[in-house]
Amino acid sequence: MRIVIIGAGRLASCLAPALRRGGAVVAQVWSRSEASARALASSVGCDAAWGQLEAVLPGADVYLICVRDDAIADVARRLRAVVGSHGVLAHTSGSTSLADIAVTPADAAGVFYPLQSFTRGRDIDFSQVHFFIEATTADAAHRLEALAAAVARPDHVHRLATPERRRMHLAAVFVSNFVNHCCALADDILRPTGVGFDVMRPLLAETVAKLQHLTPGEAQTGPALRWDEGVLAAHSALLADAPLTQHIYALLSESIHTHHETSSQ
Amino acid sequence: MRIVIIGAGRLASCLAPALRRGGAVVAQVWSRSEASARALASSVGCDAAWGQLEAVLPGADVYLICVRDDAIADVARRLRAVVGSHGVLAHTSGSTSLADIAVTPADAAGVFYPLQSFTRGRDIDFSQVHFFIEATTADAAHRLEALAAAVARPDHVHRLATPERRRMHLAAVFVSNFVNHCCALADDILRPTGVGFDVMRPLLAETVAKLQHLTPGEAQTGPALRWDEGVLAAHSALLADAPLTQHIYALLSESIHTHHETSSQ
Repeated sequence: MRIVIIGAGRLASCLAPALRRGGAVVAQVWSRSEASARALASSVGCDAAWGQLEAVLPGADVYLICVRDDAIADVARRLRAVVGSHGVLAHTSGSTSLADIAVTPADAAGVFYPLQSFTRGRDIDFSQVHFFIEATTADAAHRLEALAAAVARPDHVHRLATPERRRMHLAAVFVSNFVNHCCALADDILRPTGVGFDVMRPLLAETVAKLQHLTPGEAQTGPALRWDEGVLAAHSALLADAPLTQHIYALLSESIHTHHETSSQ
Repeated sequence: MRIVIIGAGRLASCLAPALRRGGAVVAQVWSRSEASARALASSVGCDAAWGQLEAVLPGADVYLICVRDDAIADVARRLRAVVGSHGVLAHTSGSTSLADIAVTPADAAGVFYPLQSFTRGRDIDFSQVHFFIEATTADAAHRLEALAAAVARPDHVHRLATPERRRMHLAAVFVSNFVNHCCALADDILRPTGVGFDVMRPLLAETVAKLQHLTPGEAQTGPALRWDEGVLAAHSALLADAPLTQHIYALLSESIHTHHETSSQ
């Protein structure tokens, strides 16, 4: 399968080498910036294009749009002529609808969403990543599924419609962005003690290791679960200088407690 | 070193075998309940005691109190006569003060706090756990440090006073209880899609793997960081039926954004 990748950001720079290793032909990488396009293209040994979207190669089997969510619809519209009737145009966003990329209902268009957090320079084990596919035609869906299966385990390739994918993207914000931010707040709280965040790393690792086989409901512990009012009040007092964090502490504690009451009824 | 363990809950049941493997002599396990005392004592091959605290063995070097926070002061007061002048009486709580365990200022008393989340039946790698020690006398501090070093890496044994330990315990609530609860909320959000929480596990693993070498500030990504108002509003709308979770979403998003603005100034 011949692939063109539109974008050279975090996702594109992780995905392009993985697709090549999985046996796809990455024919071209396009980016607004010449430097980014050249850097990624040279790392996967393909053609680079930049600037106007008219520079994009015609005739590929799949065009994967890996740009910012708010640029997807515009890029899709401008690429349509290049993609032609053979190519499948797909975006890679969790929160953008299929309709945003299908300019007319007859267009072979789709969604190719890898549920993962990508960081430039970090090697992602794509075999573990779950992919969520949606498409306007059966042929487009098959092509995108085959592409996902080139890098991921076959049982990690799923079909999912836009409303469910959006909900999953919201869940992913809790699992990734909010988990990370809880750690950022812990780092702030620790600062006056002179103890570095690294003492927290074994605790974080164990918290998450438990979640690899328990459900989050089964794994919950802590003063909010027990509703230990002495500890809750002492913690809140420690956050008197950080009212937003204090508010977050109160709401998450209330939510843990409510959740537990509901699930143990 | 001869140790008596007071309690047979999650911490005691993880700590007792680890201390024995580290070369300490676990002389006795006491619990309110006969069944719990016998079960843990037989798993470490030591004497069991239950019921009244007068059943506790005199003459040990360290008595480790592993009971609920709100029972520590009472247990300490009632154990004092058994502990005598040779023994060190220590609790294992992050949020309880040293003063709560030292009945008179002359008592050899201390804190032996392992920063970890304990689950019955899970094997904890104690060599990675950080221990935080505080004591009323130099001898008591040395004895507790030696005990911690029997199970943990020497550079994971720290001295920390009560106010700083309480702050660290609060940070641990964010890293462990709140991280777990963010996953519980994600599980709730996913439910109507029919997709199970297991699709989130590779994302969670990668989020945390990044934090083993990046700071949480460096690792942050997501719509709240970019302040992508379209995505934030769509996510909020999806939570219309769950007002507490919607409120948590808004506050954590605001906090991510504020945090980033402050740190990039």
